[in-house]
Amino acid sequence: MLNSALCQRLGIEFPLFAFSHCRDVVVAVSKAGGMGVLGAVGMSPDRLREELDWIEAHVAGKPYGLDLIVPNKFEGKAEAFDSDKLLAALPAEHKAYADAILKRHGVDPTALEENRKLSTNWSQNLREEGAASGLEVAFQYPIKLIANALGLPPPIMLEQGKKHGVAVAALVGAKEHALAQVAAGVDFIIAAGGEAGGHCGDVSTMVLIPEVCAALRAINSDVPVLAAGGIVTGAQMAAAMAMGAAGAWCGSVWLTTPEAETNPIVKQKMLAATSRDTVRSRSRTGKPSRQLRSPWTDAWESEDAPKPLPMPLQSFVSEPALRYVDKLSQSGHEGARELATYWVGQGVGLMNEPISAGAVVQAFKEDFIVATERLAKFVEA
Amino acid sequence: MLNSALCQRLGIEFPLFAFSHCRDVVVAVSKAGGMGVLGAVGMSPDRLREELDWIEAHVAGKPYGLDLIVPNKFEGKAEAFDSDKLLAALPAEHKAYADAILKRHGVDPTALEENRKLSTNWSQNLREEGAASGLEVAFQYPIKLIANALGLPPPIMLEQGKKHGVAVAALVGAKEHALAQVAAGVDFIIAAGGEAGGHCGDVSTMVLIPEVCAALRAINSDVPVLAAGGIVTGAQMAAAMAMGAAGAWCGSVWLTTPEAETNPIVKQKMLAATSRDTVRSRSRTGKPSRQLRSPWTDAWESEDAPKPLPMPLQSFVSEPALRYVDKLSQSGHEGARELATYWVGQGVGLMNEPISAGAVVQAFKEDFIVATERLAKFVEA
Repeated sequence: MLNSALCQRLGIEFPLFAFSHCRDVVVAVSKAGGMGVLGAVGMSPDRLREELDWIEAHVAGKPYGLDLIVPNKFEGKAEAFDSDKLLAALPAEHKAYADAILKRHGVDPTALEENRKLSTNWSQNLREEGAASGLEVAFQYPIKLIANALGLPPPIMLEQGKKHGVAVAALVGAKEHALAQVAAGVDFIIAAGGEAGGHCGDVSTMVLIPEVCAALRAINSDVPVLAAGGIVTGAQMAAAMAMGAAGAWCGSVWLTTPEAETNPIVKQKMLAATSRDTVRSRSRTGKPSRQLRSPWTDAWESEDAPKPLPMPLQSFVSEPALRYVDKLSQSGHEGARELATYWVGQGVGLMNEPISAGAVVQAFKEDFIVATERLAKFVEA
Repeated sequence: MLNSALCQRLGIEFPLFAFSHCRDVVVAVSKAGGMGVLGAVGMSPDRLREELDWIEAHVAGKPYGLDLIVPNKFEGKAEAFDSDKLLAALPAEHKAYADAILKRHGVDPTALEENRKLSTNWSQNLREEGAASGLEVAFQYPIKLIANALGLPPPIMLEQGKKHGVAVAALVGAKEHALAQVAAGVDFIIAAGGEAGGHCGDVSTMVLIPEVCAALRAINSDVPVLAAGGIVTGAQMAAAMAMGAAGAWCGSVWLTTPEAETNPIVKQKMLAATSRDTVRSRSRTGKPSRQLRSPWTDAWESEDAPKPLPMPLQSFVSEPALRYVDKLSQSGHEGARELATYWVGQGVGLMNEPISAGAVVQAFKEDFIVATERLAKFVEA
């Protein structure tokens, strides 16, 4: 176990946090001494219960956490949620542009219109009300951490966290947001650099971590900062902790493990990718998110592309198409294989072997020690 | 002195490299135990001789270096250099767009056309022939390092470096470029993340450093890697060295020192800026370079802006305008004050006090020790 107040507080051995949508990854990391955090956005309360039951049955009493998304700015948040109305508002230009990309790669877009409605379900959870039913389930389980990935956590999350003794964490991409989160009462800051996979700001991890740590020191806050963005090795984790972070929050590195349910086609692409094969784009959700480059993302980055719609509307354009592409790519369709993509950070350039999640944690621990010794040697008398 | 092969090789105490166009910064850093590196691009051979004479007279025998730019791809490289011809090729649209930005801020662009010709002088040095006369001067001085900031160094630089026992370094922003540089025979790699000021790639320092170090290990190369991009504190330098870097190469952090000849208006802006106040844009030179955001850069990033011209043509649009703005801003012109900008990295968010270059080196040393101890404490038995 590291000498770390954070490890003691959470009852973990090594302050490596694994954000994953796959319960197998969550369990493997928690059992290996880190902390698995289940990404539960888009899950119905029933599905969430099922996942948490499974985790409880397999995690051998080790601590784990949960991650939800409740953005502050949400199109249609105030009005009653109406899938048909949202779908009717989708500009024909965007749907036609997406269809044209698919056609150019031999994918027939006819089936998409039907699937589009299904894709609105996940955004149900993006609303405070939708999230509330998820939270109700969550706090029936002995989770140790609950994180909110976009904006300030809803008051109910903070209240329930306090009541149940569950640490509430929030993801931020800028110093100002970290200060706002601490003022709102979160227990942990996850500071994510612009090299992170998924939604991200544009300040790099190397700058953001010391900047956030300095800002918190300046207000005498002792809220721990977890470093995220590009971190896929123990040496990078050590680097972040040398700059003041209390641990590392990683998402991308688990995507190529055998435990992850990543599309095998995309997994192969990730193992082969360099750090320059990702793009930060608004084309998937409407907010900037980093993803593996493919002809799909290239087309949306081109000058002819329509401007991405605000969140969550852009998702109703991209998700049905990319889910269909995912399915087709696995049945051997060449055009779909080319288009397939998923969220991943620049650290993908360092992810070159499909080792298990437990082995990833072990490699982190070893690299962490090597990096610490490397640095110490520079100043030995 | 750190226990570092690099320090022994160069005869320095602390592997902090200061890239600066100001000879006072170069001397202050070398005398404080780091290594000052004079950015000499755009200097005539006579001017370079003058600067190096001054450094020799003040540096008290401490080691220092020199930085030039000789890009491989250069518009008009093959043909005879003809300022008039290049200027005649500038599209009216770009000049008109620049003029309109100035006018909107109350700056009269009439004087610019005359100044534009002067601005072509610096690009003279971007050609191998122009650089050769600079190199001839350089090797008459006891420099310890010579760096090339864009592309592979010209053969003459590598030959002369070998002959005179001067280490040749090259700036890269991607793993593939590092491998090409090592194959070409450089002695040092400077790996610069996308958060760096000036010309930069888009892979972050946190990812690029371990990626380049791993790539060099894989070919059994022991060429040292200096980390650049966003580094303005000793803790960040320690972080980079925990990941395998042999030292840090910094440019931005010197810009707000009293020794630097930075426009005082821009200096004030930098001290007040956060890490989100920079932009990576092709609008200054034609290649992506990171600079302080201002209404000038915002205008070039807007959707109405003409696409930046290839290097060096875009410079003939931007440099005369921005130099004029620089001058005007210092005489109290409000519009010019708003427009004023300069190259700087995201680390600007951590540059909040105008301390001297020597004090910066001292602060780096102290922060480096603190960071090393912070990290070591995590693993103490």
